[in-house]
Amino acid sequence: MGSSETVEVTGHLMDSGILSRILDDIRDYGGDYVIEQFDVGHEANDPSSARITVEAEDEESLQRLLMRLQTRGVNQIDPGEAVVGVAERDGVLPDGFYSTTNLETRIRIDGAWYDVENPEMDCGLVVLESPAGLRVRTVPMSDVQVGMRIVIGAAGIQVSVPDPDSGSDTYGQLVGDTPYDKPQAVLVRQVADEMRRTRAEGRKLLWVAGPGVVHTGAVPALVALIGAGFVDTLFAGNALATHDIESSLYGTSLGVDLSVTQGVEHGHEHHVRALNTVRKAGSIAQAVADGVVTSGIMHALVTHRKHYVLVGSVRDDGPLPDVHTDVIEGQRAMRAEIADVGYCLMMATQLHSVATGNILPATVPLVCVDINPSTVTKLADRGSNRGRGIVTDVGLFLEQLALELVPDYRRG
Amino acid sequence: MGSSETVEVTGHLMDSGILSRILDDIRDYGGDYVIEQFDVGHEANDPSSARITVEAEDEESLQRLLMRLQTRGVNQIDPGEAVVGVAERDGVLPDGFYSTTNLETRIRIDGAWYDVENPEMDCGLVVLESPAGLRVRTVPMSDVQVGMRIVIGAAGIQVSVPDPDSGSDTYGQLVGDTPYDKPQAVLVRQVADEMRRTRAEGRKLLWVAGPGVVHTGAVPALVALIGAGFVDTLFAGNALATHDIESSLYGTSLGVDLSVTQGVEHGHEHHVRALNTVRKAGSIAQAVADGVVTSGIMHALVTHRKHYVLVGSVRDDGPLPDVHTDVIEGQRAMRAEIADVGYCLMMATQLHSVATGNILPATVPLVCVDINPSTVTKLADRGSNRGRGIVTDVGLFLEQLALELVPDYRRG
Amino acid sequence: MGSSETVEVTGHLMDSGILSRILDDIRDYGGDYVIEQFDVGHEANDPSSARITVEAEDEESLQRLLMRLQTRGVNQIDPGEAVVGVAERDGVLPDGFYSTTNLETRIRIDGAWYDVENPEMDCGLVVLESPAGLRVRTVPMSDVQVGMRIVIGAAGIQVSVPDPDSGSDTYGQLVGDTPYDKPQAVLVRQVADEMRRTRAEGRKLLWVAGPGVVHTGAVPALVALIGAGFVDTLFAGNALATHDIESSLYGTSLGVDLSVTQGVEHGHEHHVRALNTVRKAGSIAQAVADGVVTSGIMHALVTHRKHYVLVGSVRDDGPLPDVHTDVIEGQRAMRAEIADVGYCLMMATQLHSVATGNILPATVPLVCVDINPSTVTKLADRGSNRGRGIVTDVGLFLEQLALELVPDYRRG
Amino acid sequence: MGSSETVEVTGHLMDSGILSRILDDIRDYGGDYVIEQFDVGHEANDPSSARITVEAEDEESLQRLLMRLQTRGVNQIDPGEAVVGVAERDGVLPDGFYSTTNLETRIRIDGAWYDVENPEMDCGLVVLESPAGLRVRTVPMSDVQVGMRIVIGAAGIQVSVPDPDSGSDTYGQLVGDTPYDKPQAVLVRQVADEMRRTRAEGRKLLWVAGPGVVHTGAVPALVALIGAGFVDTLFAGNALATHDIESSLYGTSLGVDLSVTQGVEHGHEHHVRALNTVRKAGSIAQAVADGVVTSGIMHALVTHRKHYVLVGSVRDDGPLPDVHTDVIEGQRAMRAEIADVGYCLMMATQLHSVATGNILPATVPLVCVDINPSTVTKLADRGSNRGRGIVTDVGLFLEQLALELVPDYRRG
Repeated sequence: MGSSETVEVTGHLMDSGILSRILDDIRDYGGDYVIEQFDVGHEANDPSSARITVEAEDEESLQRLLMRLQTRGVNQIDPGEAVVGVAERDGVLPDGFYSTTNLETRIRIDGAWYDVENPEMDCGLVVLESPAGLRVRTVPMSDVQVGMRIVIGAAGIQVSVPDPDSGSDTYGQLVGDTPYDKPQAVLVRQVADEMRRTRAEGRKLLWVAGPGVVHTGAVPALVALIGAGFVDTLFAGNALATHDIESSLYGTSLGVDLSVTQGVEHGHEHHVRALNTVRKAGSIAQAVADGVVTSGIMHALVTHRKHYVLVGSVRDDGPLPDVHTDVIEGQRAMRAEIADVGYCLMMATQLHSVATGNILPATVPLVCVDINPSTVTKLADRGSNRGRGIVTDVGLFLEQLALELVPDYRRG
Repeated sequence: MGSSETVEVTGHLMDSGILSRILDDIRDYGGDYVIEQFDVGHEANDPSSARITVEAEDEESLQRLLMRLQTRGVNQIDPGEAVVGVAERDGVLPDGFYSTTNLETRIRIDGAWYDVENPEMDCGLVVLESPAGLRVRTVPMSDVQVGMRIVIGAAGIQVSVPDPDSGSDTYGQLVGDTPYDKPQAVLVRQVADEMRRTRAEGRKLLWVAGPGVVHTGAVPALVALIGAGFVDTLFAGNALATHDIESSLYGTSLGVDLSVTQGVEHGHEHHVRALNTVRKAGSIAQAVADGVVTSGIMHALVTHRKHYVLVGSVRDDGPLPDVHTDVIEGQRAMRAEIADVGYCLMMATQLHSVATGNILPATVPLVCVDINPSTVTKLADRGSNRGRGIVTDVGLFLEQLALELVPDYRRG
Repeated sequence: MGSSETVEVTGHLMDSGILSRILDDIRDYGGDYVIEQFDVGHEANDPSSARITVEAEDEESLQRLLMRLQTRGVNQIDPGEAVVGVAERDGVLPDGFYSTTNLETRIRIDGAWYDVENPEMDCGLVVLESPAGLRVRTVPMSDVQVGMRIVIGAAGIQVSVPDPDSGSDTYGQLVGDTPYDKPQAVLVRQVADEMRRTRAEGRKLLWVAGPGVVHTGAVPALVALIGAGFVDTLFAGNALATHDIESSLYGTSLGVDLSVTQGVEHGHEHHVRALNTVRKAGSIAQAVADGVVTSGIMHALVTHRKHYVLVGSVRDDGPLPDVHTDVIEGQRAMRAEIADVGYCLMMATQLHSVATGNILPATVPLVCVDINPSTVTKLADRGSNRGRGIVTDVGLFLEQLALELVPDYRRG
Repeated sequence: MGSSETVEVTGHLMDSGILSRILDDIRDYGGDYVIEQFDVGHEANDPSSARITVEAEDEESLQRLLMRLQTRGVNQIDPGEAVVGVAERDGVLPDGFYSTTNLETRIRIDGAWYDVENPEMDCGLVVLESPAGLRVRTVPMSDVQVGMRIVIGAAGIQVSVPDPDSGSDTYGQLVGDTPYDKPQAVLVRQVADEMRRTRAEGRKLLWVAGPGVVHTGAVPALVALIGAGFVDTLFAGNALATHDIESSLYGTSLGVDLSVTQGVEHGHEHHVRALNTVRKAGSIAQAVADGVVTSGIMHALVTHRKHYVLVGSVRDDGPLPDVHTDVIEGQRAMRAEIADVGYCLMMATQLHSVATGNILPATVPLVCVDINPSTVTKLADRGSNRGRGIVTDVGLFLEQLALELVPDYRRG
């Protein structure tokens, strides 16, 4: 083994299984290790810390392994100084680029530490000159421009893993738990508490929702939550918005309306006719202004002046005029809404939940509700260790949530 | 009830449950019906036919109901002449437009019948003048241009439902069956037979595949099938191609390589580094030509000069330079490959399978293999009544399929 | 073909797909058919009727096919007289025995028709002499005694398929539907309505429940429903009762208590210790009387003098002294509770739900709630065509149901 | 806190997450801890060890916590001497009884250590006098007899956790891993290797199988494996045996036979008729001897003189005369077959797999194959840390396994 580096990690290493993941990573990368020191907290709840010397075949392998370990909160004892290279082509990072995590990250340049402004996974780090001095931001591969100064390798970088206990003692259930059998009614109340707290702190509530919200009859509940101020921004696809509008345009009674299940989406002419109607109006907001769309989720968002970002997919009909058909532009539009988000609710959509999880900082707590356990589980290992998964029906979940949060829901 | 029309339908009405779906549709649309005549085949396998008078509140409702019924193969007794309107805006169909099915369809204009050239669901019908006379094609909403002549209402249109028995007597299992417990080894052989027959008929084999093909260790099997000429075109997303290339670039042994599961896709720097490498080369083909990518599925497609269409999604990193980031352009690229397809295999991807099902004519048989029953079921009601679903692991399925079709597979 | 018989069937043959199942059965048994007559209702909602001549290879095959068709409500035009044989051995039915359905059935003997007293699937029919004349009852194979007079073949038998519309217009969703995306909150209210109606009619509410009821935190909801008189009888296994009692004995706070998930049932000494404690008391009722068990579902059943039948399975620890360890005796105990049941709720248990479905007459409506779609689907084809399936979390379902039915629930 | 004890544990504490589970247990039981010493292996693969002082409210709580911790391989530094009580009632263990694990366990009595002869979970420990001296065995609660000498509390007991690496370096995938995306064809070969090795060591191959084996068309593969000597004992329920025999009696062609899916089990008169036929013969072996059953799994087991234990469940029809209707007696019959088992294959049955997992020593490796991930996961935490889970279709799995192990399979 040619190259080695000594790293350290502090936290609830044994409770959380994080140490075993670190050692797995080292083996996966063909590296080796010696645990130099291990300080275990003697009392329950004391953090422990480890100092590990990591070896790899050559310097490049070592750098890549160190970058990998940083996703676990493992930092070099002597971080050194960040190395900066230059992008030689639009959309391409320089060789050996540092691949980011969504953890809080800081970079040392010329002896000074700079916080990364917008932590996001799987990006590069760009160093910018500004009147106020140096700034460091994540940059997605597709937004790289020739000449950008990009951090190379793992030197000069430190990341911090958020303490799972901080902020809230209700965070007993992390996404990593098996979320099958849980006291669901209690979980709903915990989510309601988080939402109230987020609002009280002046931070935004971000929702990500799939068409199942419409199909399970949860439109009234979500409309009530929008009206009561518990939805600041909605991320969704063409399907949720179209089904919602279709239900508003053509739904005559509950039975008929809700017989529109996902399975028959295509071939159902209501669906394409609703799309054409909104395309004719020019936008959802215009269709609301024209009095064409008079109810439903999108109507509530428009009339309460809430934000939404709709991003398309290859299976879309239409799509609605508001939908970003270019997915990279869609990601940019989503990023523009992330800034003040304090809590994220992901409802019955794997595609958009994963997309959102990719760009959310690890410090934002999230809850993922889906009847499919694998969707919930998939959010677990994305570095978002403040996530909570609830395997349940989104219809009943939102009904209960509206009953908790909206005083007059179903009383009027 | 103000408006009525008499329609007829012929086929295996009772075996297939089609008549009950027709009556459900009429009720869903608030219409009413009188069954004027019902001829049931006296012998087993005789087709039956029904003549039904359908009533609706007004003419517009009636037209929409008639269009809906045509998705079931129900035609008007007296089809009359097609009514043609004009598109007044790009991307918007005229009010009352005829919404297409993926069934074989013909249109009567001035007493003559014209076949729709490319049946596809949820489109408009555009009537084109050409030197050889009138032509009728489907046009997706987003491709509508001002001035296009578009068919309005259900008059002058006839659709034909393919006979489920024709072509092959192996089509016992339609997608509509519950596909849980089936003799899987027998099903593999039936699929192999269909593939040989399709190739013998000179038609194309279209594959749609998700990253599970890589994760379940099926790369060698699929590479062997490509080499033996059993893959003409592949539709996939960024994930399959990236995982495949990542496995080619960084996989050292099977155990290590395949520990790369979907769950850890993000945060795993192999993944973004593989993306950056191919972006630097400029394209997958160039990365193969440069000797950077030397094995795997994409390598096999490039070296055997097979087609592939990669369409992006909102959760993509990178993406690879070959990926269509605009999903509507991606759909166009997929449509351009549909023409001579004789058989379609959908492997472990719901998103791209649904997208492909949307544009495939109903006459193309398809098989959908997925370990998630709901993905398989979702393909059932898309009008593709020549579909077959197999709920199983794609890794073992492809292993068996390669053993059936590639003489030296695992013998070398 | 040697033997034939003419049969008829009346009902909503086309809406329900029943005719297609009949023809499938004939093919499955290697038979052939000619549809002699088919009268379709001209108006919507008119029943239709078919007269079919069925052929089979020989008389035995024909009789078996006719018995099979009776499970679909297909009767012989000329039923003739029932043929009666004699059981020659305990626990064994005579050759050619008539295999029962759970539909309303009557038997003609010496020109008179006798109703089968307790329709149940997969039994024989025993003809009994009584002071009041002949009686006909189903007899499970294991309860057959030497000398019993058992009906042979399909002659002299008529079954009636219940009209799916009768009794309640809320029965839109039969189990056969795909129950994924449904307006769940509406469904809860429909179930609540059925329960109120059943109670108003003086019929019993039968519950079947698995341990998931405890794990999902639904004990308070179910206890409230028992207290309010909405549970007459509970069928369950050792696990539900043990988990419930364990939770009562050792649960200190919600978090700790409910961390007891199914996965860790074994190896968790709380579990075996709870079992031993009740075994020491001698029975659950005695443990309640002794003040050992002071809360929970079993406590509520005992103190409100409700019935329960616990039947064991091969994976049981203990079991509790109240558990029937002999499954055939357990079935007998369950049958003894079936008589006045007017509605059946099946919650999160496949094993006991299937067992209950086997012995319930087809006329008893049932609702099956489970987060696993396959459990719900499995109930669909058991002849219980008044079943409804809800794929959702049982915790939220019962919480909502208690909110609907118990005035002070969560207000106190 | 009143009572405390110092315990130690050695092994791959950090890799395996075992330490975090130990600390969770202490918290769950309301206890507290101080980590006195923690020796971490400095090199990769070195075991580590911890010495922990555990505190609880009172002596009883402490003893229960210590028993709980022993399921993790945690032993007291000073084990002391075992305390023995006397059972005062049949079927009831004395208060404070030691609740067993399935790990290798030894007991100190009068200064001498005795191995527990048959480690099994959730039992008591009985101390027996024998001519050869003291013996210690596990005793299930239901087999306790008045006067038995039973171990009380955790003193004088040591358990050993098997080294996950020993025996085979193929045990990379323990059940605890997420088993979704795996190289399935490789896994089949690893299982085949384990089976060959087990046979070479002269130990028994135990199979546990559900009716899905029949429904997925795997009967020929399993029959071939029986014929080739790869099945010593089969544990199953009434359903597998009945479906297999039904298929042998009434299956005419593959298509027809295998249309018999689980969903239609009831109401299908083939099923009850097959049951009655074997009940008339008196046993499966007699039905084979009489020439009534001439093919299938049960036929192969009988003709090759292999063992089988069939245990009933509450949903059974019939059942077959060989089925244990008393589940506690069924468990006893299963225990009698466990002695020399060297490898256990669990195929598509949750009920019987869990039952088998309950009585298997932790030293016996097992593989669980099921298309339902939750069944596979459920086996994970049962203390059987040598288990491997494969989420796949059992039909293709057994086909591949027969191709690996039976030279002429599908060549004849």
